[in-house]
Amino acid sequence: MDSSPKKIDAKQADLNDPLRSFRERFALPDGVIYLDGNSLGALPKSVRQRVATTIDEEWGVQLIRSWNTADWVHLPQRVGAKIGRIIGAAEGTVVAADSTSINLFKVLSAALDLNPGRSKIISELDNFPTDLYIAEGVAKQINKGHRLVLADAPADIPAMLDDDVAVLMLTHVNYRNGYRHDMAALTKAAHEKGVLVIWDLAHTAGAMPVDLTGANADFAIGCGYKYLNGGPGAPAFLYVSPRHQGGFRQPLSGWFGHRAPFDFTPSYSPSNRIEQYLCGTPPVLAMVAMDEAMSLWDEVDMAALRAKSIALCDFFIQEVGTFADEFGLKLVTPRNPDLRGSQVSYSCENGYAIMQALIARGVIGDFRAPDIIRFGMTPLYLSFTEVGQAAGVLRDILATRAWDAPEYHVRGAVT
Amino acid sequence: MDSSPKKIDAKQADLNDPLRSFRERFALPDGVIYLDGNSLGALPKSVRQRVATTIDEEWGVQLIRSWNTADWVHLPQRVGAKIGRIIGAAEGTVVAADSTSINLFKVLSAALDLNPGRSKIISELDNFPTDLYIAEGVAKQINKGHRLVLADAPADIPAMLDDDVAVLMLTHVNYRNGYRHDMAALTKAAHEKGVLVIWDLAHTAGAMPVDLTGANADFAIGCGYKYLNGGPGAPAFLYVSPRHQGGFRQPLSGWFGHRAPFDFTPSYSPSNRIEQYLCGTPPVLAMVAMDEAMSLWDEVDMAALRAKSIALCDFFIQEVGTFADEFGLKLVTPRNPDLRGSQVSYSCENGYAIMQALIARGVIGDFRAPDIIRFGMTPLYLSFTEVGQAAGVLRDILATRAWDAPEYHVRGAVT
Repeated sequence: MDSSPKKIDAKQADLNDPLRSFRERFALPDGVIYLDGNSLGALPKSVRQRVATTIDEEWGVQLIRSWNTADWVHLPQRVGAKIGRIIGAAEGTVVAADSTSINLFKVLSAALDLNPGRSKIISELDNFPTDLYIAEGVAKQINKGHRLVLADAPADIPAMLDDDVAVLMLTHVNYRNGYRHDMAALTKAAHEKGVLVIWDLAHTAGAMPVDLTGANADFAIGCGYKYLNGGPGAPAFLYVSPRHQGGFRQPLSGWFGHRAPFDFTPSYSPSNRIEQYLCGTPPVLAMVAMDEAMSLWDEVDMAALRAKSIALCDFFIQEVGTFADEFGLKLVTPRNPDLRGSQVSYSCENGYAIMQALIARGVIGDFRAPDIIRFGMTPLYLSFTEVGQAAGVLRDILATRAWDAPEYHVRGAVT
Repeated sequence: MDSSPKKIDAKQADLNDPLRSFRERFALPDGVIYLDGNSLGALPKSVRQRVATTIDEEWGVQLIRSWNTADWVHLPQRVGAKIGRIIGAAEGTVVAADSTSINLFKVLSAALDLNPGRSKIISELDNFPTDLYIAEGVAKQINKGHRLVLADAPADIPAMLDDDVAVLMLTHVNYRNGYRHDMAALTKAAHEKGVLVIWDLAHTAGAMPVDLTGANADFAIGCGYKYLNGGPGAPAFLYVSPRHQGGFRQPLSGWFGHRAPFDFTPSYSPSNRIEQYLCGTPPVLAMVAMDEAMSLWDEVDMAALRAKSIALCDFFIQEVGTFADEFGLKLVTPRNPDLRGSQVSYSCENGYAIMQALIARGVIGDFRAPDIIRFGMTPLYLSFTEVGQAAGVLRDILATRAWDAPEYHVRGAVT
């Protein structure tokens, strides 16, 4: 798979794109090529009216009655079911709730309890930091001597799985370089050693099909605001295999995880279903935005989505490849589509300033410390023409050293 | 204070009401008298446009850039500061985040760690259940032998404070009967025994002035969607006294609690400020609704708010008092304003059906198992005339036994 891909004709590829009609479902500003849908997905146009209706009619008029009449109370399950359908999860195994970090706290607590007598949590040094921070937090609080052991590279992981490992906790697609783990193979290898596996699907869900059931996954978590387009800080989700439901009482035992929340009993009696992984009152405005964003996914052919994702990445790699060496850009994303997600990343000097110059020219990607420029390829609303143009702007910025202006070196709070 | 209040003239009271102009700032449906703002606060009219702007311009046009340009990244602190101003909390001691349940998990974990060698968590049997459930969850996970000991009645609490008590955890105003604890006196009594105190302000914040600083409170949590009018499932808040900040690493250690989240370092280095109590990415749509709702509070005279709350409750108690005995309604809320929040509750037979009949007639309160009908008095948008009318509708429903229709006995998912 290391040979060069065949030359892509962007115009023809756009004409042949079976997903091209989705573009008009999104609000995208003129003059912008948005390659950051892996950080914040674009706005599905229908979200605005849906949220306005929730505010005006459900909150403003129906008020408290909407918990029943608009079924606010089951939003976590309804949104969860929609997410479940594109990640290979059966009904009753996914809920939308809280943040990815908090959901990891829940499922990691469960996984460690379900696999007692083992001390290690295996992850990667280059995992998304909040996952590692949460693992530290869980290990510290349960205080049973668990320790986090980090692989330097994906290839090192299988050999690290031994009978003292309780949990393998990985982000399926790496947030910096886009490397994708083999979910089925690693899950199988882990299970053979008695290790439970948690998959973080932050950069996977909505970027490609996933088959949690087929991979025999134990737990998964993921993010609503990237490829799923649920809005800034959208509710996250979590998956618990049916075989682990009811086996452990996750510690964030708020009333929505109770068997009968509205009985108001003083003692906690956990639901033995996926609802046990809920905690407090769901954030309705954020949930309905997410619900609306997810409604679009029922129409998406996930195989076509993946095919377009691969083609967009291939095309960008090919176009940037014509000048990458000249300007010191090193491709850090695997060329082999089987080993990557839906982004293309390069390491380079002056990456921060280069990205700022790109953004100033309307090509929005992002920078990840220390030296990565990252381009997310979102098949629902990106065209091949845009991807080709983005590569052209990048070439121009490098060739003219446009990035070497003082204003592009000023760091913002969020990069 | 047990003598009958002086007769109130509703029309005159409305004319003299210094807060009457706030009513027009809220969207309330015609034909409804809304006495459930203690469950879901009414919609501040300006929220709709603020959320629409956030969706259309910040998300839709500025996209990822809004984390900087619209300062999304500091919403938890900005909203927290606004809440802090009406609960007597200094700048840098309050953040808006997550749910009340999750925030309790954070501060209870902190409080237990900061008070080692003591085994008891004292609360009340009639505390809001999710608080008790979370305490069970924390105690179980940290597994150091902590146990939850519940007072049967408020008067029993002082004698229960001994040198084996780590934490006293109370909801300031009881969700069922509206009883209000003496925050300053109980905090002082607890501190004299070396006990740390957590106050749940769910039924306090926005209902009356609070002085956390003056009461020398250790920790507080509270709810955004009741008297603060932040919207269904709005972000909750938490307060940590400056003397406890930096003293403990709360276990939900997500990236927003890190000293420098965007450095993406693999090891967690906690902020030593209130930000350490943040966890994942903040839910922006819910946060901006909350921020907008809180902007109104800058204009509110909190002493006038409390005076009107007392008068509304007195008036309702007086009006219902003219027929309560005849129909078996027993006032369970203290008559003494110093001992209550901003609600009036009665125990009665057939309470569920009576409340359904009230709601069908446009008087929206709520029912709390097993036998409480509850009427929330929200001084910002209720008039004395409405409160008088509500009492009249209640009398009529009882006198005609209108509640004794089959449809009023069918239980919904949320009551």
